[in-house]
Amino acid sequence: MRASRFFISTLKEAPSDAEIVSHKLMLRAGMIKRLGSGIYTYMPMGLRIIRKVENIIREEMNRAGAIELLMPVVQPAELWQETGRWDKMGPELMRVKDRHGRDFAIQPTSEEVITDVVRNDIKSYRQLPINFYHIQTKFRDERRPRFGLMRGREFTMKDAYSFDRDVAGMQRSYQIMYDAYVRIFERFGLQFRAVAADNGAIGGSGSHEFHVIADTGEDALVYSPESDYAANMEAAEAVAPATPRAAPSQPLTRTPTPGKAKCEAVAELLNLPLQQTVKSIVLAVDSEEAGTQVWLLMLRGDHDLNEVKAAKVPGLANYRFATESEIVEHFGTRPGYLGPIGTKKPVRVVADRTVAAMSDFVCGANEEDFHFTGANWGRDLPEPEVADLRNVVAGDPSPDGRGRLAIQRGIEVGHVFQLGTRYSEDMQATYLDETGKPQLMQMGCYGIGVTRILGAAIEQNFDDKGIIWPAAIAPFQVVLCPMGYDRSEMVRTETDRLYDALIAAGVDVILDDRGERPGVMFADWELIGVPHRVVIGERGLKEGKLEYQGRRDAAATAVAVAEMPAFVRARLAA
Amino acid sequence: MRASRFFISTLKEAPSDAEIVSHKLMLRAGMIKRLGSGIYTYMPMGLRIIRKVENIIREEMNRAGAIELLMPVVQPAELWQETGRWDKMGPELMRVKDRHGRDFAIQPTSEEVITDVVRNDIKSYRQLPINFYHIQTKFRDERRPRFGLMRGREFTMKDAYSFDRDVAGMQRSYQIMYDAYVRIFERFGLQFRAVAADNGAIGGSGSHEFHVIADTGEDALVYSPESDYAANMEAAEAVAPATPRAAPSQPLTRTPTPGKAKCEAVAELLNLPLQQTVKSIVLAVDSEEAGTQVWLLMLRGDHDLNEVKAAKVPGLANYRFATESEIVEHFGTRPGYLGPIGTKKPVRVVADRTVAAMSDFVCGANEEDFHFTGANWGRDLPEPEVADLRNVVAGDPSPDGRGRLAIQRGIEVGHVFQLGTRYSEDMQATYLDETGKPQLMQMGCYGIGVTRILGAAIEQNFDDKGIIWPAAIAPFQVVLCPMGYDRSEMVRTETDRLYDALIAAGVDVILDDRGERPGVMFADWELIGVPHRVVIGERGLKEGKLEYQGRRDAAATAVAVAEMPAFVRARLAA
Repeated sequence: MRASRFFISTLKEAPSDAEIVSHKLMLRAGMIKRLGSGIYTYMPMGLRIIRKVENIIREEMNRAGAIELLMPVVQPAELWQETGRWDKMGPELMRVKDRHGRDFAIQPTSEEVITDVVRNDIKSYRQLPINFYHIQTKFRDERRPRFGLMRGREFTMKDAYSFDRDVAGMQRSYQIMYDAYVRIFERFGLQFRAVAADNGAIGGSGSHEFHVIADTGEDALVYSPESDYAANMEAAEAVAPATPRAAPSQPLTRTPTPGKAKCEAVAELLNLPLQQTVKSIVLAVDSEEAGTQVWLLMLRGDHDLNEVKAAKVPGLANYRFATESEIVEHFGTRPGYLGPIGTKKPVRVVADRTVAAMSDFVCGANEEDFHFTGANWGRDLPEPEVADLRNVVAGDPSPDGRGRLAIQRGIEVGHVFQLGTRYSEDMQATYLDETGKPQLMQMGCYGIGVTRILGAAIEQNFDDKGIIWPAAIAPFQVVLCPMGYDRSEMVRTETDRLYDALIAAGVDVILDDRGERPGVMFADWELIGVPHRVVIGERGLKEGKLEYQGRRDAAATAVAVAEMPAFVRARLAA
Repeated sequence: MRASRFFISTLKEAPSDAEIVSHKLMLRAGMIKRLGSGIYTYMPMGLRIIRKVENIIREEMNRAGAIELLMPVVQPAELWQETGRWDKMGPELMRVKDRHGRDFAIQPTSEEVITDVVRNDIKSYRQLPINFYHIQTKFRDERRPRFGLMRGREFTMKDAYSFDRDVAGMQRSYQIMYDAYVRIFERFGLQFRAVAADNGAIGGSGSHEFHVIADTGEDALVYSPESDYAANMEAAEAVAPATPRAAPSQPLTRTPTPGKAKCEAVAELLNLPLQQTVKSIVLAVDSEEAGTQVWLLMLRGDHDLNEVKAAKVPGLANYRFATESEIVEHFGTRPGYLGPIGTKKPVRVVADRTVAAMSDFVCGANEEDFHFTGANWGRDLPEPEVADLRNVVAGDPSPDGRGRLAIQRGIEVGHVFQLGTRYSEDMQATYLDETGKPQLMQMGCYGIGVTRILGAAIEQNFDDKGIIWPAAIAPFQVVLCPMGYDRSEMVRTETDRLYDALIAAGVDVILDDRGERPGVMFADWELIGVPHRVVIGERGLKEGKLEYQGRRDAAATAVAVAEMPAFVRARLAA
């Protein structure tokens, strides 16, 4: 490609509403253009990257035996009503009426449509397993779109759906997709991590998220450097302490802690480690039969509640946080001084595994400005119900018993999910087994946020000059920067010769023939992030040399003119 | 591709709502699946064809210097309001509100968005000309979607938009696109015709439609077999008769024609040629200043009104057909007996060029059950205003003076259009010229209905067995049909060998390893329309032969095993 036949439009400054580095850099590099809130035009420079991402995904999906089709953007509400998602999904589902007043959804995903296709077209066990995917425009009406392509409203997603005879088959299909995702992210040239994720209301064992590692990531990833263990924060198990609970050594003492409503303040006042304190979290569950039940969850002072884990405690599936009046009614005091000992009305106590192993701990005394010290299970209050309630922290033992957990930040760009019969049951997607009996299909779904990959790749790969694309998804692999293409016959000849050689070798090269000054030219391509650059100048040519510089290199390397094509190809293969 | 890794789903019968052959065949061949009215899932077999169509378009657009980007499906109403199209477009523009109640359009085209991109990003004459295109999902809420992909609601379109400094530049950009379209349709392997089209309200000289020739086409294409002249029916000029009007030879005679309200009936009753009769068409134009004006348009009895031409008569731009009460008020009688002589109130008479050259003609007498015969201009009524008002008919002289017009049917699949400043003026898309003065950009727009191409190609290429794809856009170029792939070692070995040889030669081949009976296998591939088939059977192999059959061939050709790869490649190149 010659730059004069392409469209390059860079900005010195990003618009002020761009908050994160990938958003700023994509706008500055002319890759995207904002059309409305969370809606972007993919400019030629950005579209090239999207196409490369799509092609890698497509190749690996095809290799894994998935079959591409294309489902519509505008989908009839009837199908969404069959699965209940028409009502369950909130305003993020964009809804539209046609001229006859019929309801349609603008697809955020396509479980319903593919299940409809399959229930009509797949009749026999002989046709299973099968896995269909498409790469299509999606819309999710985010309440607060932001971060450019990271949390846009209109976006491109690859979504695949597998259909199997039974759970074992579904798990095989799932593993095939998992393996394909690993290959896809490896081919992107991005550092990534697959982590076990919570399966939510679906149940079943299998769900993994694929994250691009980036310090700016929204999600915390938990892993053991000494094993394969990896999970997202919601799903990472905090194992019970290995050492058993120590025997009580202090008396239970009602201790004044005036104005100290937080564990940190209480620990400081009493000159105790924060790890000796316990915090109280009050939940409520409403039910038609039993009215409102109040629960007390207890966590160590330095730990945080994991709301997903709380919902897994039997009876807490539909919990909410208690209101202040409910708290006062049950504990006789306001939040800050709550505890399990001497509540005004009975509450159901659940202790985190760590708390259950504590002795001589500090907790609220259910009286304003007072805490208990020296509290002990079994002596001062009954043994509690125990559950894993907290987020893990770095240094926790790995649940697989191998090493200690580390935490890093990631950006979720893929998700594989064992759906089971969640959709096939509602939509009666059945096949006939060998005996002619209809059986529900076992489904899996597998998404990759195509456009989000761009943002995530940049969050992982940038410097103060701009983006640093991995070669596989760079808009161009190599840029040729001739100094005086329009003035110097020598420069033009050698530039064209190198360009032709690289094109013939199948290298995706752009020749910057715009006639910009070298400073502008270099700044543009460093901002855009092309990974390999060759400068062609008269001075070097007189010595038979060209200058190569990798985007991450501190300095240029002089390379003999004749050797440059091979040199560049070697760098691309590295 | 092995069929066992692909999804093939054929039907014996098309659903009863499929009206035309392409719709029926695409459903039967498992290429599309109806999701809702005018909304289809493109199944794997159909998507392969779409991708081939898209790739040919993309290659030729790139070759022509157009630059690909991707504009959003969901577009803010504000831009559509700037050009007035938000109000002007009827219910076919699908409108949607987001969660904040803001209005959006689901794009049917993208003039507004691209003009917005360009007015923000293009500042200088140095950046012009430029041409952007995208291939994207469109939506048009047709009142009556039908004919499958021919008149769907959701569809894929390639739309390109050129921006130039001046009219001459726009015309150059237009010609470049015209030439690219010719290459695209040639590469598709379809018979097509580019015809001059009416520019509608835009004005300007340039607009051509590209039609795929098919007897079932909705549009009439007019051309001269002896010259390059070609236009659609709306735009084809009916030239004035070469021979001057003959002198009157009959007296004006009020003739009883009881119950004969149609020219055909009058001609039959009076034993005169239909070509001697004149029909009256009454139009009305409402204006605030002049109230309602009634016009009488006169056409020869065997000719049809061309409504587009009527609107070009000065004063008739906003015409409507007159109501019966307006007709009675002005002519004193009901339709069927109207004429220009002796109207009750004055009307403005416009005669078609053919009528203006007639003498001794027959027209209504403005009295029920009576016509005039022997009517003559200048003698019995004033010389009329003259205009080209009618559709041409086969045999009319070509407007370029070379030969006589022929008419064939076509399906519109592409349109190139000189827009001028229609959008740039409303949206103030300007550039700075050499003197630093802002100038409006001159635009062109260029569309190809990607998904419609599939329907049109089939309407042109089918037989009683199914579809006959041109090789360039066939889902597969070649199908290998082994007889007993699962049973015969010999068949399997030779089939695999041929498959590998064709794959290595870059041939898009599918190996039917499904284990279907030969009859089912042949019927499926004839229905799907793969243009080249090779049958591998034990009997032939024992003689060292395979069977080749082109989809249009009456019989198979025996080809030596070793020669088959070269034979197939030669047929593909033919």
